[in-house]
Amino acid sequence: MIEDKSSKSTSISELGEFGLIDHITKNFKIIHASTLKGVGDDAAILDFKNQQVVVTTDLLVENVHFDLSYMPLKHLGYKAAVVNISDVCAMNATATQLTVSIAISNRFPLEAIEEFYEGLKAACETYQVDLVGGDTTSSAKGMLISITAIGVLNHDEAVLRSGAKPNDLLVVTGDLGASYLGLQVLEREKQVFLVNPNSQPDLTRYDYLVERHLKPEARKDIIKLFKNLELKPTAMIDISDGLSSEILHICKQSNVGCKLYEEKIPLDQQVITTCEEFNINSTTVALSGGEDYELLFTIAQADFDKIKGNPSMTVIGYMTEPNEGVHLVTRANQQIELTAQGWNSFKH
Amino acid sequence: MIEDKSSKSTSISELGEFGLIDHITKNFKIIHASTLKGVGDDAAILDFKNQQVVVTTDLLVENVHFDLSYMPLKHLGYKAAVVNISDVCAMNATATQLTVSIAISNRFPLEAIEEFYEGLKAACETYQVDLVGGDTTSSAKGMLISITAIGVLNHDEAVLRSGAKPNDLLVVTGDLGASYLGLQVLEREKQVFLVNPNSQPDLTRYDYLVERHLKPEARKDIIKLFKNLELKPTAMIDISDGLSSEILHICKQSNVGCKLYEEKIPLDQQVITTCEEFNINSTTVALSGGEDYELLFTIAQADFDKIKGNPSMTVIGYMTEPNEGVHLVTRANQQIELTAQGWNSFKH
Repeated sequence: MIEDKSSKSTSISELGEFGLIDHITKNFKIIHASTLKGVGDDAAILDFKNQQVVVTTDLLVENVHFDLSYMPLKHLGYKAAVVNISDVCAMNATATQLTVSIAISNRFPLEAIEEFYEGLKAACETYQVDLVGGDTTSSAKGMLISITAIGVLNHDEAVLRSGAKPNDLLVVTGDLGASYLGLQVLEREKQVFLVNPNSQPDLTRYDYLVERHLKPEARKDIIKLFKNLELKPTAMIDISDGLSSEILHICKQSNVGCKLYEEKIPLDQQVITTCEEFNINSTTVALSGGEDYELLFTIAQADFDKIKGNPSMTVIGYMTEPNEGVHLVTRANQQIELTAQGWNSFKH
Repeated sequence: MIEDKSSKSTSISELGEFGLIDHITKNFKIIHASTLKGVGDDAAILDFKNQQVVVTTDLLVENVHFDLSYMPLKHLGYKAAVVNISDVCAMNATATQLTVSIAISNRFPLEAIEEFYEGLKAACETYQVDLVGGDTTSSAKGMLISITAIGVLNHDEAVLRSGAKPNDLLVVTGDLGASYLGLQVLEREKQVFLVNPNSQPDLTRYDYLVERHLKPEARKDIIKLFKNLELKPTAMIDISDGLSSEILHICKQSNVGCKLYEEKIPLDQQVITTCEEFNINSTTVALSGGEDYELLFTIAQADFDKIKGNPSMTVIGYMTEPNEGVHLVTRANQQIELTAQGWNSFKH
């Protein structure tokens, strides 16, 4: 349905806090039998029978984690859900419920919140997740989103960061670096727009990069695939801060070393050409860019046949004894120690 | 241990995000067998066996929900946990786990965060709750806290807002209005301080009020008592927004009316004398003040004997057919329709 929204602007205080919650949650359907009671009481009631439960939470702050000048609110709602669902996937679990809280300043009309919740609803439908609670409140400045995702898994299915063993293969899903480059493209267009507000950006050459940044997906498909393949990774993490930072997490928590092969890192063609255009090293982008929301995991060598030839998975290295350290093996066969260049919100 | 903190001020960016999480969570002990994995992976792993799970979440924003000019950070950490544990109690459940996320601007040194987590730790110990996750990030302005509390209950133990029946008794725990008056006293002292920074406030006459505001408690004891008394309320809610607003929630969701008796509303002596001093009506304060974190519940008349004479519980009215409306019966025996004057963050 196409409608002209330009003339509408409803103040949130007209609805009040409870009216707002009713208004934005009434179109969310409950899917899971485990959701006994969703929004509308002091707490949600869930029943997981004999399954284990995973819980993860994230706080997203305007102008720290997102910039509304190029992030549409609908995409933001979608992405906010996805980044938490991705954490659930990284435990080898299936996301089942979300709580979503937002704080917004009075510069946001009701229609802005509706757009955010439209994106959230799209994510709930795509990933089959129930919205079961949350809080809406005002902020002194800007927008803030807090999401808690809940998921389930059967006993012995959980995959921690700490289970990798020497000689395990290091595997990554999809390709890396696109989200970071998408952000660079959007930042450049924003600067152009600030100088000349009549400029119309042509982003078609960067469509994959921009989509990876604005509308990332969680690799729920991979968790399903693991079940079908009867494959249980020995360790797993999702790539939110950059490949380098995530490898170091696994190495530290598993007490292993790692050899990562530069030539194996999967890159999309748009990443390669855009890196040339921006004159930045594509390996650096893959190592430190972050926000790919791909899964990084380790498997026993005996399981290699299960993933061999799978286009969604690339073996990029292997784990070693801890005293061998954590190294990138370059195309020139040099060994460079990996350091965490991952994203740190307190430094940027 | 008394130490001079005045000379220390550590920048958070020195520690980095992961260092900060390690630093502030290392002193939290895991108590519950249901916490299989707490902080330190992509998500926590919990196992509730055959129990049902309740989940509730709250977002607290500086200068909307709290004012750091009179709210010490340690108290804030304690209170932030308590308000969520109170929501778990209001389901007739026992809180077991918390996730806590904070966003802070760079005006906060590490020591401020440590104080906040000290208060949080005190609440975790008092209420026997495990900290199992969270997120720390920077904000453009001010401090923001998002807490999700998880609790457990056995099948058929959950008490919703929607179960009240006509003729059920309306019962409240503790006394009402003190937290709101405590806030008024603190606000007045803040104004005095702004005019004369050398003034030393004497709050001894208001100690109960100030404590109720700065360090409220959740009525976990009442949930235990219900079990001992083999009493299951028909409906329950905690008083965060004010008695009036909470009664209206129960009436709306249970489709009942209510008669509330002004003379029955429990007030502490400090509330009565301070209302006189401030020249405000104590009933208005109890109805609309909020942040009492007492429990408001309804019971079948047949259960009256189980609570009769209990000093923690006061019968303040009874539920009626819905067409009789929701009324306050005044001391002069007038009937006044109750309206929600509860706290709305979008209006204040």
